[in-house]
Amino acid sequence: MRIAQVAPLAEAVPPKLYGGTERVVSWLTEELVRQGHEVTLFASGDSETSAVLVPSVPQGLRLAGVRDHTASILVMLNDVLRRAGEFDIIHFHVDLLQFPMFKHLFDKCVTTLHGRLDLPDFHPIYRVFPEMPLVSISDSQRRPLPPVVNWLATIDHGLPASLLPFRVGGGGYLAFLGRIAPEKRPDRAIEIAKRAGVPLKIAAKVDPADREYFERVVKPLLDHPLIEFIGEIGDEKKGEFLGNALALLFPIDWPEPFGLVMIEAMSTGTPVIAWRSGSVPGIIDENVTGFIVESVEEAVRAVEKARGLDRMAVRRRFEARFTAAQMARGYLGAYERLLAAREPRRPVATRHPVAKSMPEAKSISPGGLPSLPLPAPVAGEFIGRPRLIHLAEQGSDR
Amino acid sequence: MRIAQVAPLAEAVPPKLYGGTERVVSWLTEELVRQGHEVTLFASGDSETSAVLVPSVPQGLRLAGVRDHTASILVMLNDVLRRAGEFDIIHFHVDLLQFPMFKHLFDKCVTTLHGRLDLPDFHPIYRVFPEMPLVSISDSQRRPLPPVVNWLATIDHGLPASLLPFRVGGGGYLAFLGRIAPEKRPDRAIEIAKRAGVPLKIAAKVDPADREYFERVVKPLLDHPLIEFIGEIGDEKKGEFLGNALALLFPIDWPEPFGLVMIEAMSTGTPVIAWRSGSVPGIIDENVTGFIVESVEEAVRAVEKARGLDRMAVRRRFEARFTAAQMARGYLGAYERLLAAREPRRPVATRHPVAKSMPEAKSISPGGLPSLPLPAPVAGEFIGRPRLIHLAEQGSDR
Repeated sequence: MRIAQVAPLAEAVPPKLYGGTERVVSWLTEELVRQGHEVTLFASGDSETSAVLVPSVPQGLRLAGVRDHTASILVMLNDVLRRAGEFDIIHFHVDLLQFPMFKHLFDKCVTTLHGRLDLPDFHPIYRVFPEMPLVSISDSQRRPLPPVVNWLATIDHGLPASLLPFRVGGGGYLAFLGRIAPEKRPDRAIEIAKRAGVPLKIAAKVDPADREYFERVVKPLLDHPLIEFIGEIGDEKKGEFLGNALALLFPIDWPEPFGLVMIEAMSTGTPVIAWRSGSVPGIIDENVTGFIVESVEEAVRAVEKARGLDRMAVRRRFEARFTAAQMARGYLGAYERLLAAREPRRPVATRHPVAKSMPEAKSISPGGLPSLPLPAPVAGEFIGRPRLIHLAEQGSDR
Repeated sequence: MRIAQVAPLAEAVPPKLYGGTERVVSWLTEELVRQGHEVTLFASGDSETSAVLVPSVPQGLRLAGVRDHTASILVMLNDVLRRAGEFDIIHFHVDLLQFPMFKHLFDKCVTTLHGRLDLPDFHPIYRVFPEMPLVSISDSQRRPLPPVVNWLATIDHGLPASLLPFRVGGGGYLAFLGRIAPEKRPDRAIEIAKRAGVPLKIAAKVDPADREYFERVVKPLLDHPLIEFIGEIGDEKKGEFLGNALALLFPIDWPEPFGLVMIEAMSTGTPVIAWRSGSVPGIIDENVTGFIVESVEEAVRAVEKARGLDRMAVRRRFEARFTAAQMARGYLGAYERLLAAREPRRPVATRHPVAKSMPEAKSISPGGLPSLPLPAPVAGEFIGRPRLIHLAEQGSDR
């Protein structure tokens, strides 16, 4: 398949430092190339890829000091549009500028929404261009969007299976990894550790925007024998930091669209104790890869229970659900369905009315979780441009 | 002429409170309607106009609490594009989202650039779409842009002649009107007043972003018998505040693209003492409507000289250069040249090579300022889509 991946330009692909989206784009791109697809990556010129790189700007814009990315993204999109005929699928990882420009090409477009969708500022674009095929990164992420949009699938992020290898663990500490920010609730993590009587290591950066929160709320809590603040850690230390922990604490207080760190921990065999919010219920398999809690008390009990979990089972569930290969399989399935919809002669597997596309049907999980019935197929008929299939991602994709 | 005016959506047209761009769009729109043109205004639904209003959002986005305007503007532009065939001219007052969407229609498009252009973040769009006809609001505003762009004209802003009537004046004070911000240099205004021994009245709002600057730098300077801080004033008090002043101080320290307050003062007959920066040399007629200075000493001397200026002459120069009717005449001239370029049978007045379009030729000013020779006409030839005319605005337009 000839696939264009259109990355944000904030960071290189993969990023030199942070950048969740660009990291995921890199993993997906490399896996698609590995599987033999012809992939063209539109990204910043300091990206590194085995795909064909089309450098849209010399360097990732954040580190280049460019604050408003609009012009650079428009120019990149214009380039993509000019070459649209060379691709079977154009996969966007940018938010919304592509909607009007590609409206005549939606039958070969996919947009993965990487951010939270509960802020209404962007909603007009989804309402006016409801036919753009969209991929969510968790089912919960979809909820705030108007019901008219064209959901193609929910596809979990995945990371290369060998990136963060399994560790036997045994470290007697809890881990907190990420940004220090009010919605990440490091204060909750500290309270849980203190009440559980278990050491907590906090590996986190403090952005300028969160400096005041850190000084006012978090710093006073750090002066305790169980709490260790080790600051920011690089990718190379992540495996050790996560893999040696008893459990990762993820006590978030916001609708996290995905939460990569959860699957990073699972990759090393470390279970996750997380608040019921956003993507969490879709990612953690209760009692297998961790525990979903709603109070500090529950979290403290979960710390004790985490000692009893089988770390190899955590890793196995990670391998079954959250590798880059799984993610690529999910996307290839979505691409195939788009291609099938473009060729009316090829049978289209199933159709589902657009307005009710919020999937109730959950995927068949390899670990034996209950699988709900899939939506009944609806005979396809095409009015004008083929309406795309509206189907939650299914079985083999997750 | 069938003209679409495409306004920003931050404020209503005209704005309920602030909003320079939306105010100018309103003045231009009303004047074009008054002259008998069919004008369609794309703007927020709380706009008030005698043109046909197409409400793109219910309310100006800033007061509606919408922080990211991108989606709403894209939706508006999509609407404009859908109806493009209904208009002879589409005049954009938004920054850059229209460039890729309208690239096949540049022969009927005009974009007025209302902001400063020295920040490079937007430059990629101008470089990649050099054929979009652009209007600058001062010649100095153009300097930072890549030389390839298609300048159609520099057109001064103008305000309705009756909005701020002539006042005999006589108020023995200097006026400072605008925002308290470091680049507006209220501190300089205070120093000038103190050294000239003339009272200064400061009518200014303090945005949250500038609160710290106000407290730290400006407030300590206010405790002086000559200095009076009267806070923010509404439109209805502007005429009195400006018209009773001896002179307006405009001691800016940034490349101001236009500076409406200068012509507001002139409208009341009050001269302007301004720093040589940005648009200032193009707006002030030295010794007629004010003085251009480069130091506090010069400014102090200018205060004395301002007493000798003929306030009626200031008003007359305002009427000759800066009314809404003048502005509309400038834009109609630009529209006409676009239309002429679209119809190869109609004679095109003049052409000028695109790469050197930064005009040296200044306009013929009714007040007897020197008029430099106009660029020599170049025989028009159209290669593919007609290249538009590249010509500084001329004689009668200013």
